[in-house]
Amino acid sequence: MSALTHSEITALLLALGLLLASARILGEAARRFSLPAVLGEILAGILWGPTIFGSLAPTWRAYLFPTHGGGALAFDGLMTLAITLFLLVAGLEVDLSTIWRQGKTAVNVGLAGIAVPFSVGFVAAWYFPVMMGWETGADPLIFALFMATALSISALPVIAKTLMDLNIYRSDLGMLVIAAAVFNDLVGWIIFAVILGMLGSGGGSLGIGQTITLTLVFALGMLTLGRWVIHRILPWVQAHTSWPGGVLGFALSLTLVSAAFTEWIGIHAIFGAFLAGAALGDSEHLRERTRATIDQFVSFIFAPLFFASIGLKVDFLAHFDPVLVVTVLVIACLGKVLGCGLAGRFSGLARREAWALGFGMNARGVMEIILGMLALKYGMIGERLFVALVFMALATSLMSGPMLQQLLRLKKSRRFTDYLNARTFINPLSGHTRFGAISEMAAVAAQVAGLEESEIRDAALLRESLMPTGIGRGMAVPHARLKGLSSPLVVVGLAPGGIDFDSPDGFPAQIIFLILTPLQDDGVQLEILADIATTFKVKEIREKAGCVTNCTEFLALIRSGCEL
Amino acid sequence: MSALTHSEITALLLALGLLLASARILGEAARRFSLPAVLGEILAGILWGPTIFGSLAPTWRAYLFPTHGGGALAFDGLMTLAITLFLLVAGLEVDLSTIWRQGKTAVNVGLAGIAVPFSVGFVAAWYFPVMMGWETGADPLIFALFMATALSISALPVIAKTLMDLNIYRSDLGMLVIAAAVFNDLVGWIIFAVILGMLGSGGGSLGIGQTITLTLVFALGMLTLGRWVIHRILPWVQAHTSWPGGVLGFALSLTLVSAAFTEWIGIHAIFGAFLAGAALGDSEHLRERTRATIDQFVSFIFAPLFFASIGLKVDFLAHFDPVLVVTVLVIACLGKVLGCGLAGRFSGLARREAWALGFGMNARGVMEIILGMLALKYGMIGERLFVALVFMALATSLMSGPMLQQLLRLKKSRRFTDYLNARTFINPLSGHTRFGAISEMAAVAAQVAGLEESEIRDAALLRESLMPTGIGRGMAVPHARLKGLSSPLVVVGLAPGGIDFDSPDGFPAQIIFLILTPLQDDGVQLEILADIATTFKVKEIREKAGCVTNCTEFLALIRSGCEL
Repeated sequence: MSALTHSEITALLLALGLLLASARILGEAARRFSLPAVLGEILAGILWGPTIFGSLAPTWRAYLFPTHGGGALAFDGLMTLAITLFLLVAGLEVDLSTIWRQGKTAVNVGLAGIAVPFSVGFVAAWYFPVMMGWETGADPLIFALFMATALSISALPVIAKTLMDLNIYRSDLGMLVIAAAVFNDLVGWIIFAVILGMLGSGGGSLGIGQTITLTLVFALGMLTLGRWVIHRILPWVQAHTSWPGGVLGFALSLTLVSAAFTEWIGIHAIFGAFLAGAALGDSEHLRERTRATIDQFVSFIFAPLFFASIGLKVDFLAHFDPVLVVTVLVIACLGKVLGCGLAGRFSGLARREAWALGFGMNARGVMEIILGMLALKYGMIGERLFVALVFMALATSLMSGPMLQQLLRLKKSRRFTDYLNARTFINPLSGHTRFGAISEMAAVAAQVAGLEESEIRDAALLRESLMPTGIGRGMAVPHARLKGLSSPLVVVGLAPGGIDFDSPDGFPAQIIFLILTPLQDDGVQLEILADIATTFKVKEIREKAGCVTNCTEFLALIRSGCEL
Repeated sequence: MSALTHSEITALLLALGLLLASARILGEAARRFSLPAVLGEILAGILWGPTIFGSLAPTWRAYLFPTHGGGALAFDGLMTLAITLFLLVAGLEVDLSTIWRQGKTAVNVGLAGIAVPFSVGFVAAWYFPVMMGWETGADPLIFALFMATALSISALPVIAKTLMDLNIYRSDLGMLVIAAAVFNDLVGWIIFAVILGMLGSGGGSLGIGQTITLTLVFALGMLTLGRWVIHRILPWVQAHTSWPGGVLGFALSLTLVSAAFTEWIGIHAIFGAFLAGAALGDSEHLRERTRATIDQFVSFIFAPLFFASIGLKVDFLAHFDPVLVVTVLVIACLGKVLGCGLAGRFSGLARREAWALGFGMNARGVMEIILGMLALKYGMIGERLFVALVFMALATSLMSGPMLQQLLRLKKSRRFTDYLNARTFINPLSGHTRFGAISEMAAVAAQVAGLEESEIRDAALLRESLMPTGIGRGMAVPHARLKGLSSPLVVVGLAPGGIDFDSPDGFPAQIIFLILTPLQDDGVQLEILADIATTFKVKEIREKAGCVTNCTEFLALIRSGCEL
């Protein structure tokens, strides 16, 4: 019986642990700079892969990340499972009814968002294959079709995330972008499935005609009949099995079997997982908590491992071809932004909105990388083009948010915790009066901001004298706009004994926020006040915030909600 | 580069999907008969394994569950990961401080719970090896030590689950059982780790002395210094990384690295995962929701797959030896029940409580099976004894709950949904008065129970005339005890328009429960009333219960909490 050896198990577990830790750490670091986490995750793989670690310590690399033998096969199996589950999550996010609600415009934009980049990509790759990174030996038609598809696919998860970050996910334009992207994704992946079928990549026993027919029948069946059946079965599962084990088991086994089926018909397993996710996610009977459990475990464990494993595969330095990278990037942006933007204009959108639509749809993100990896695996493309595609995917995702922000003149929502740190957290306040508390907090703020203590104190007290800042529920928010302050500053002080801030509800304040903003504050003062009010609306958070010992615990409480 | 072939991927995904689905279905079926889910999960594996499916369709079995080649290695890697994560969850449930709170009695019982069965097992296996299932060729000392350990280990997860089901988890006796079991588990697994080290099973480069030293140092270090460091790091992770990705990534990578370390020192990976879980779970900074996400994904996805894979390995029919099964079972029960029971008596427990303690600790459950599987893998025991150990583990777990119930004269808590079905769910009620509603529900009850409609209606109306049963918040609970009714019956009627039941809060009732119980009702009427009050205390559940269309949706709502 084949089993992993002791040494292979040790290496596999250690590799997974190190890869996960570094992918999560670099993913968090990327987010700190407002970059997508996937950038850090791929970077973690590049660090451990042939590019860096492999050239510094080849023996260790061969031990931890073997390319042959049992350990390599087990790792490959795990990564196949990881990407399958990731596509399940991507599918769960698809909301089919959005397409119908947005109607004709969405379909127009979605179609143009595929047709234009597809044509541009096909023409470029067919007439100038070498410029587009074609490698001798690859089938030129398959290559051109692949490039056409690669340039026309969008990345629903990245787009959804960008829109949510900008707070326009639920706006008309946001819903239009999502609807067009859903349509785009479905059509794009079906085209890719057909190309994979043409390639006969699977080496299965089915002919290309059968593969294409089965693909279309399965996709349509899953999104109509399958969806209907799942919607009927889900309440029954939830009523008669243990919660949430029944529905988790149902969702996962359906995904695995569906993935196995698409792998069998000659297209990749991820296609079945994506369709299963789309059919499952569309049912309103699927509870939020079930989605969250699947989403969290997959997005934070399996996805980082998978994206790090991409960096492991290829030497990104050796295969970096700057001309090819720029060519692919320019053609990708041209086709998508022009296609979607013009379709938006023709459908009656304003100029800025139409271009925002184009740049929104332009984000390729992780989907492009998955596509590229499959193409690399099946020999459609070489490593040089793969590296270029990864760069293109990351660059288009990176530019999407800022371009939308610029075009729609949006501001990212700001939280009061952005302006708080360990130095501006005082626990407990030594003063027992309003004056004492404000003075103590002003002194701390003066040190951090490099201003005069008296200036801050007097400004806050002046504001306080106009109208008391106790807002009830044990909180007070003294504030002031200050000349010479370069960026906003929040000081938090805890007063377990309570300090009278003349609240409307008569209770003394136990959590006091001193909010200091520049004279031209761009609305940030109001945003901070609103954020504090929203955050502390929950009673448990208020109660537990009074019991923390330091700033880290305070921030941990705000981040992780009301559980302690 | 080694990678799985198209056919291996198809088979792997299909096998995982089928195995998961059948393990979950049979697990649910087992629960329906108040049996542990793990019984059904192992049975699912037996069905797909050599015992049944393998002898009916050997070609298909070889395709789906290959024993050699890439697919087998990938499956083995996945199952190693599954069992590692399962031990993480088991470790998370350990509450180290419980041991200290229960003090000397817990340590006494825990020690006796190891020492007595260990001695009994060692003596039996040393002097009567053949009777105990020793196979020619195995080292007799290692065999005796293994049997001694196998008989002395408990199964914390099963014990905790049993106590929770009986509602005595938080009682003094419950906490004592848990504390003793935690102590027992820690010591038992350390002994097993030492035996594995003696075996040199890993084939690592370390000598036995080094392995034992490293094991003890690592275990102590993880439970003291490691625990302290984790407790300090967790708030920082939660404050400065994305929620809950940061803490999930931290917990999982710690577990994987810790598992790799114990695998490397020559004991099994699960040992490191268990210790990492114990150290992590002990910190109050680990949020409930994080525990729940890990627990749900592992308990309902990885654990069923792993336990099913046990059934896959061995032909349970061919290796079933009834004499050996009974011998192992009797010796196992004797040692554990006597050891713990007597220690309990000496520590001053009453007779019934002492024996309840013994039978509580007697549950071996999944831990025994994991132990047996490792012993089988490393050649300490043969398949005959493995089968006997699995039976012993299941039998001791099965008898634990009923014995506790018997000895402590407990009743399982009963829910109103136990007595409700699609036939006794009326939506909407056609009557608009109290009399009309009760009559309509009585008619349905009469059909189901085979009683006279008038008898039921009159009894309920008589009770109603004594004091109205509107309990406010839009609910009413007319009820009656009936001669000739064999088991309780609950009829639910929805009245969207509201029916006046003279509630204290003046609101008409929109959800009406007719509760019928036998004359000698054993307190079930009160339990049902209390359960209804508790369940519908949450406003969202009340509101959503009024909008369901059928009984399945109603039950799904109750089961899955307040999310729709």
